[in-house]
Amino acid sequence: MEKITSTSNSKIKYIEKLNQKSRFRHSEGAYVIEGERMLKEVDPALVREVYVSENYRGNEISRFESENIPVFYVSDAVFKSMSDTKTPQGILGIAEIKEHSLDDMLKGDKTLLLFLEDIQDPGNLGTMIRTGEGAGVTGIVTSKNTVDLYSPKTVRSTMGSLFRVPVIAVDDFGETILSVRREGVKLYAAHLCGSVFYDKADYGGACGFLIGNEGNGLKEETAKLADGYIKIPMEGKVESLNAAIAATLLMYEVHRQRG
Amino acid sequence: MEKITSTSNSKIKYIEKLNQKSRFRHSEGAYVIEGERMLKEVDPALVREVYVSENYRGNEISRFESENIPVFYVSDAVFKSMSDTKTPQGILGIAEIKEHSLDDMLKGDKTLLLFLEDIQDPGNLGTMIRTGEGAGVTGIVTSKNTVDLYSPKTVRSTMGSLFRVPVIAVDDFGETILSVRREGVKLYAAHLCGSVFYDKADYGGACGFLIGNEGNGLKEETAKLADGYIKIPMEGKVESLNAAIAATLLMYEVHRQRG
Repeated sequence: MEKITSTSNSKIKYIEKLNQKSRFRHSEGAYVIEGERMLKEVDPALVREVYVSENYRGNEISRFESENIPVFYVSDAVFKSMSDTKTPQGILGIAEIKEHSLDDMLKGDKTLLLFLEDIQDPGNLGTMIRTGEGAGVTGIVTSKNTVDLYSPKTVRSTMGSLFRVPVIAVDDFGETILSVRREGVKLYAAHLCGSVFYDKADYGGACGFLIGNEGNGLKEETAKLADGYIKIPMEGKVESLNAAIAATLLMYEVHRQRG
Repeated sequence: MEKITSTSNSKIKYIEKLNQKSRFRHSEGAYVIEGERMLKEVDPALVREVYVSENYRGNEISRFESENIPVFYVSDAVFKSMSDTKTPQGILGIAEIKEHSLDDMLKGDKTLLLFLEDIQDPGNLGTMIRTGEGAGVTGIVTSKNTVDLYSPKTVRSTMGSLFRVPVIAVDDFGETILSVRREGVKLYAAHLCGSVFYDKADYGGACGFLIGNEGNGLKEETAKLADGYIKIPMEGKVESLNAAIAATLLMYEVHRQRG
């Protein structure tokens, strides 16, 4: 069995670049998925290549081999250089970026959308996608200044949910909000000036939430595009909640009401 | 105005060690708080010393000077070596660790506790403290293998809530759970095998939740100590939620019911 033992191998350089550069990922239409769980949950039709460290003892390889997806073996040291984690599980793949459209996200009365404005923390974005799947979101729209969905940390923190929840990054966030409203989706801005508590609004029909950046909240011009402002009650001296925490409460309140 | 310009100054070394070593923090009974917000929210009586970079232009210094708390000026380069952030705000302090007891946390029918078992991510711990304050928790108990409350990242992610929410780390987690139950607090384990959805239990009286480690959930022996198991519904293929996300839903459901 041939094995790649040099980190200057062009395939290894390619993967490192996919891990590091958002623009490169998008020009290649590909990103890196790492770890047993991700490789198990991905649709093999979207996987271009798989890389396995010499000491990998798991059993996620055969699924790819039987689909004639190239599997490359690399030394442990080389794998470490390709990996974005401190304790690599020894398996990763190059996956194709799957493009979604707004239409994929509109599911009649079941529609539940998140609009994320300029989220900066990859873990927050990943957590919102994971929690979103749990709560039944039908799609997530991100502003163009939101952290890249395909960065290794975001991918990892989705725990596989990015394979199942349609997410799109849009250049014109405001215009997208308005066009979704024209489709009959009620959009609420999570806002400190909200006059209605989040659990008092009626989420029976198609709806969604606008969630702002971690440090600054929603831009005023974005908040104004919503059908209404809602707020989450906060005791003590808390001035705001983490973006993923706020999104969780809102999405699960919809789930509770529809339940 | 005298200024510390060397990173080998013993005061600077002391702060670096406080940032890096959990054991050292606890033997000294002190930790580092950084940034304008933290310095603004801390009780000055708990602050031993304040350090300010030469280019700091904020106005949090006078409060400490008027209380006769020593303020030291350092060069920007030195400040950077003391700081745990990439873009330091130029002000930090050494704060005393405030010891709490279980009694501080029991507030009759308003009691709402979190028991956190072996939480590993400092951001998760900090977020639970911040969100906990927002939801009205009266105290948080952590197992001894939980990440240290006073690590710079945990402190930062509490956004000041650690000054207001009593948190204790206990050696005997199980025994503490039982003693709290003996005080009449109903404790629920967030568990995938729960038979009751989290929003169907009655949280009118004193209650609390047991939250497990991010990767493994609660240990079986811990879960068994609860009054009952509850679960959070999850759509799609989601197998679990992030610990802070689960804790958020549970705490805010109590808040909602007590409304």
